[in-house]
Amino acid sequence: MPRVVVDVMLKPEILDPQGKAVHGALFRLGFEGVVDVRQGKRFELEVEGELTPDRLADVRRIAETLLSNPVIEDFAVRVEAEA
Amino acid sequence: MPRVVVDVMLKPEILDPQGKAVHGALFRLGFEGVVDVRQGKRFELEVEGELTPDRLADVRRIAETLLSNPVIEDFAVRVEAEA
Repeated sequence: MPRVVVDVMLKPEILDPQGKAVHGALFRLGFEGVVDVRQGKRFELEVEGELTPDRLADVRRIAETLLSNPVIEDFAVRVEAEA
Repeated sequence: MPRVVVDVMLKPEILDPQGKAVHGALFRLGFEGVVDVRQGKRFELEVEGELTPDRLADVRRIAETLLSNPVIEDFAVRVEAEA
């Protein structure tokens, strides 16, 4: 069954308090080689049957309208190896 | 500056209510080609200087201890193209 991965990240110009908190914790714990952390979401969608261009267009529409907020977030859709 | 991506997903045997909610919404909205949805987290870490094996080992330790809960989550670390 084909798996499509949708990554949703805050746009670079949007402040990311979650990422900042993780970065602060890393720094306090002594991991000083990390300069910045951004946190986002990852969705794995199992698609039925073959991954036709129509299905992929559906997934793009899903990512744009349901999984992300296009005002503040960017998304990327990519197909992973068949499970 | 090298960017390392850490993907954190619930283990397959752990129930994922967020993913189930998204899947239910997709179904109600008429996207019937999607059989399952799992939701997880994606972290982007900007690493200072060169990505030495030591630095990468640090990132793996960060992923294991801070970014994921190894009892219920799996993580994957991968290096992305230099920014």
